[in-house]
Amino acid sequence: MHTAVQPRAAQKGGGAAKAIRVAVAGATGYTGQELLRILSRHPAVTITAATSSGATAARRLPALAHIFTGEITPLDPPSLAQDADLAFLALPDKAAAGLAPMLVEAGVRVIDLSGAFRLRDQALRARWYPETHALPEGLAYGLTELERPSVEGARMVANPGCYPTATLLALRPLMSAGLIAQGADIVVDAKSGVSGAGKTPSERTHFSEVHGSVAAYGVFGHRHGAEIEQGAGCQVNFVPHLMPLDRGILSTIYVRVAPGTTEEALASVYERTYGGEPFVRLTGAALPEIKHVAHTNFCDIGWRVDPSGRAVLVSVIDNLLKGASGQAVQNMNVMLGLDQTTGLL
Amino acid sequence: MHTAVQPRAAQKGGGAAKAIRVAVAGATGYTGQELLRILSRHPAVTITAATSSGATAARRLPALAHIFTGEITPLDPPSLAQDADLAFLALPDKAAAGLAPMLVEAGVRVIDLSGAFRLRDQALRARWYPETHALPEGLAYGLTELERPSVEGARMVANPGCYPTATLLALRPLMSAGLIAQGADIVVDAKSGVSGAGKTPSERTHFSEVHGSVAAYGVFGHRHGAEIEQGAGCQVNFVPHLMPLDRGILSTIYVRVAPGTTEEALASVYERTYGGEPFVRLTGAALPEIKHVAHTNFCDIGWRVDPSGRAVLVSVIDNLLKGASGQAVQNMNVMLGLDQTTGLL
Amino acid sequence: MHTAVQPRAAQKGGGAAKAIRVAVAGATGYTGQELLRILSRHPAVTITAATSSGATAARRLPALAHIFTGEITPLDPPSLAQDADLAFLALPDKAAAGLAPMLVEAGVRVIDLSGAFRLRDQALRARWYPETHALPEGLAYGLTELERPSVEGARMVANPGCYPTATLLALRPLMSAGLIAQGADIVVDAKSGVSGAGKTPSERTHFSEVHGSVAAYGVFGHRHGAEIEQGAGCQVNFVPHLMPLDRGILSTIYVRVAPGTTEEALASVYERTYGGEPFVRLTGAALPEIKHVAHTNFCDIGWRVDPSGRAVLVSVIDNLLKGASGQAVQNMNVMLGLDQTTGLL
Amino acid sequence: MHTAVQPRAAQKGGGAAKAIRVAVAGATGYTGQELLRILSRHPAVTITAATSSGATAARRLPALAHIFTGEITPLDPPSLAQDADLAFLALPDKAAAGLAPMLVEAGVRVIDLSGAFRLRDQALRARWYPETHALPEGLAYGLTELERPSVEGARMVANPGCYPTATLLALRPLMSAGLIAQGADIVVDAKSGVSGAGKTPSERTHFSEVHGSVAAYGVFGHRHGAEIEQGAGCQVNFVPHLMPLDRGILSTIYVRVAPGTTEEALASVYERTYGGEPFVRLTGAALPEIKHVAHTNFCDIGWRVDPSGRAVLVSVIDNLLKGASGQAVQNMNVMLGLDQTTGLL
Repeated sequence: MHTAVQPRAAQKGGGAAKAIRVAVAGATGYTGQELLRILSRHPAVTITAATSSGATAARRLPALAHIFTGEITPLDPPSLAQDADLAFLALPDKAAAGLAPMLVEAGVRVIDLSGAFRLRDQALRARWYPETHALPEGLAYGLTELERPSVEGARMVANPGCYPTATLLALRPLMSAGLIAQGADIVVDAKSGVSGAGKTPSERTHFSEVHGSVAAYGVFGHRHGAEIEQGAGCQVNFVPHLMPLDRGILSTIYVRVAPGTTEEALASVYERTYGGEPFVRLTGAALPEIKHVAHTNFCDIGWRVDPSGRAVLVSVIDNLLKGASGQAVQNMNVMLGLDQTTGLL
Repeated sequence: MHTAVQPRAAQKGGGAAKAIRVAVAGATGYTGQELLRILSRHPAVTITAATSSGATAARRLPALAHIFTGEITPLDPPSLAQDADLAFLALPDKAAAGLAPMLVEAGVRVIDLSGAFRLRDQALRARWYPETHALPEGLAYGLTELERPSVEGARMVANPGCYPTATLLALRPLMSAGLIAQGADIVVDAKSGVSGAGKTPSERTHFSEVHGSVAAYGVFGHRHGAEIEQGAGCQVNFVPHLMPLDRGILSTIYVRVAPGTTEEALASVYERTYGGEPFVRLTGAALPEIKHVAHTNFCDIGWRVDPSGRAVLVSVIDNLLKGASGQAVQNMNVMLGLDQTTGLL
Repeated sequence: MHTAVQPRAAQKGGGAAKAIRVAVAGATGYTGQELLRILSRHPAVTITAATSSGATAARRLPALAHIFTGEITPLDPPSLAQDADLAFLALPDKAAAGLAPMLVEAGVRVIDLSGAFRLRDQALRARWYPETHALPEGLAYGLTELERPSVEGARMVANPGCYPTATLLALRPLMSAGLIAQGADIVVDAKSGVSGAGKTPSERTHFSEVHGSVAAYGVFGHRHGAEIEQGAGCQVNFVPHLMPLDRGILSTIYVRVAPGTTEEALASVYERTYGGEPFVRLTGAALPEIKHVAHTNFCDIGWRVDPSGRAVLVSVIDNLLKGASGQAVQNMNVMLGLDQTTGLL
Repeated sequence: MHTAVQPRAAQKGGGAAKAIRVAVAGATGYTGQELLRILSRHPAVTITAATSSGATAARRLPALAHIFTGEITPLDPPSLAQDADLAFLALPDKAAAGLAPMLVEAGVRVIDLSGAFRLRDQALRARWYPETHALPEGLAYGLTELERPSVEGARMVANPGCYPTATLLALRPLMSAGLIAQGADIVVDAKSGVSGAGKTPSERTHFSEVHGSVAAYGVFGHRHGAEIEQGAGCQVNFVPHLMPLDRGILSTIYVRVAPGTTEEALASVYERTYGGEPFVRLTGAALPEIKHVAHTNFCDIGWRVDPSGRAVLVSVIDNLLKGASGQAVQNMNVMLGLDQTTGLL
């Protein structure tokens, strides 16, 4: 039971202002709930559908009481297509692979948080996401700060994975500027909280297995590795680790920089790239920590270079926000021509 | 170093809208930083001073980069009195006891987050807060939902302690309605995260002492016990416990209800009290958990009654928000005649 | 793969010294693994069977490599009865309820870690453990320090629950000594780590649900409540809480003491009861913490009494050791006439 | 207060068996307490002195009640030299640098857990441990499994750092066997629990700063980096990270292997090196986790190699045991000609 308080949107009225109708498919998982939380407060949208699979449709979402006061309903693609201008898919890869093209076809703009449409290369996709048959036209890769032009005009956005978001925001500007030594190994040692593994209970996510422990997993076999390599344009040695915390990713990136490259040179590239960006904060030699970005849409980036040309980049995000739902709404804002921070600060 | 992004207030302009000048004294502690975070986004106020003691004045607040972009300055009472319409004091008791009366005298409205002015009884105050000499006129106790009329007209608000907030919001409506059996013991077993102990490092707050442990403390000698008894109007057996988590309080309250009192009777009282309150959520027999309220200003309350008249009430809050800075801003909103949720949802 | 190091027992030889053949049924759960760990090092026993249900029989137990080097086999009651002098049952209640009587019948001594045989009252057992049909003869309740005589002669021991162990070791000596005021409510607010919920993944044990949270559960409906009431001989208001830690229980017990009873009086009773006990440590007014007993078989007990007759008792144990496997081996030692600390310090 | 139970050694008698007199200087820190715990149960030694600096000399060690029942006394070097055959120094670097040579001179064997004597190179020592003037004769580096011959005959042992222990046990056998490609970068990304930072409270070890966070530190400037490079014989890119857990280190090591080197080739080298070692467990492609070694003296090592010659080694230890006090006692056992597992399994 909950007290009968009106949803905030209703309290504030403003029907005209909240003209965009959005749907969230997969609303009860961790990313789905974050979407509901953000979108319920977003001044430009109305949530017209929040769906879940049958079993959890009636589920209570106690953390969202007084915030999202709509109903969770079973997913019904035709009615979703009819009732929404834009749909967020927070679904398993396979479900998203089937639903997204149909929605795009029906004229609904789609922001897909699954991995199904992230890889452009057909062969890689066949390996990691075999359920994805083709890429819809008008598809953008939603690493917002680095792909804004294509997101602006997109009919559909493949929202990046959490590890690639943290890693590529730090790595790509240096690659583009030619500061990374060619041929040298790039190591990405990433540390993630458990919410990235999703809400389904498993031995890997059992509290007693994670608490007081740290574990590497997916060595040479994690599909975010392929996504990072796509973004970096070269081979990357990516190893994710599970940490005893709920939210957040810290990616430690080991590279060789071109001879003579200094910390100041990196600072200069980063400032040129992110100087006007509200969600990227540059910390320089004072390396960032997960605590600073938890529960925000920020990505904090720090770096160190030693005289021998070794560089260490550290990038942190909240995996559920900048690594998933926050960036998804940021992409929506860009697609709709809104201030990209709307609803996110 | 940080990229040169303008503070959000400046970006949005709206000087007229942000007409209230507020100061935060003690801006670098945990509650002070939460105040900066909330007030930086608050549409009706401008932060004109954020002070700290000398040693930490120049301190970087990396979590607040791109949010609060002002300076942290040493506390200077006269200039603070001149530059602010309203001041939040997130200071040690002794410092607040000295500063608050001076500011009130100078016409600055004060919201004090210390304990110095919470106890009305002179004798109790002499025991727990001997540095407090007298209570200023126009002082209200800022348990917002239950003290709104006095907060509305107040010149100064003593913001409640975190344990009393969680406990009294659950207990007082039942006391007022006469549902609690007289003479029976009331036990309040409270569990708190470590941020409630403040930011100063000590053996008690060392990670390795807290992680994997639970400890009772302050048995028969915690001053929040006096504050709870003041609010409840009777003796209460209060024992706080330190838990291995950062934020949040769960208060388990054991009472005897009057003969024949049912769960529905409690529900009825709670709904009458909190039915229109945005920040109190009633969960009934589905007991609330800290996770549901962390990083919010909500207080969630659940309850169970058995046929023999034993009742268990469970109340949860985020100790830094509803238990400190969130409720402080809620009180400011009420004092200023604003919608009480402004800046807090 | 593991290096081919011989099990420690084999290294040390001593066949004659390790004459007692023991079996562990349910060896891959948290309590089962603790049993294997302790028994592998125990100088008087040889593990002749370690069983698991089919699905997990082949499972790797990486934490036990180089410690327990035997095989995990499917449970086969007849061969277990033939190969073991004594069997530990770390099984679900229902499985234990079926297996234990058969083993006792076959002359195998049994230490049952399930709840199936803990309640003596037929009606209570029908409510909480309906699968248990009758109590075998020669059954003892294995709260070692308080039930040693009956354990010594037992053919079977019902090993106490974790919450009852922590609670009754603190409460019962005071009840027996007549120091508890009659008629006053007894509140037991217990805080437990997650390993007490067992190894099967569920939403309740998902790391992201537990981390940063605290939750009460089983109010008025936890069967350990019945077991505590059986041991205390009176009604008890017992509420367990789930804490974000792996191992350990802290039980806070609120009682009224008889008029004039002092802290010293409690100290005197506790010293009389536990003065020679290696596994009970009395901490007096310096209340104990879970950290002090984690990974040990100790129970630490502290207490405070105020002049008005309110008393707070705090008792801590490691739920997997003194609350389960450690006490089970302690009981075995007593049954076998060994020093009770053998293998446990 | 504590019940008057005799220390275990006294209970068991065996004066002749416990003939070696040992001292622990710095007995109240985290490593000092672990030493007391292990040595109190060790069948061959008697603790004749356990010292601390004045301020904490009288301090209660509640976790050690009923285990270590001696007194903590102020450090007095002459009497320590007289009363002990062997001394463990769990002191700050500077104090150890002064005390160790004096004790060796006096004929006391020394196992030093500080960093003061770990670096053989004079120039490196001048940089990282300037308080160390010279290395005593008969000094061994106590990485037990790889330096056993020199430990056996040593008058003093420099006990390795926690990061070097975890890293070098995995890396050195491959270096020695020539399996590591020359000239390629070696990256060591290490993750540590907070107890490695010691017991002195600081902002870095404040629970609220560590919980829910991960942070890199000491990039290009941690002295364990120099120790790892000394052991590896080449440059290593070492970055330690602080994790939200109490005990344990996981070291992820990225190397290039010589062309054609397979996982089996690594397995073969590791088995040859560690096949008879009780405290090194090889897990192969099933990578080890901190949870498996916490509270033990084990080092678990796993590895993966891909066809392109990239290899990832993962090594885990308990930083307070195999990374400090456990390995120190292992070294003592080797120095004394005892079974190296005595007191440690």
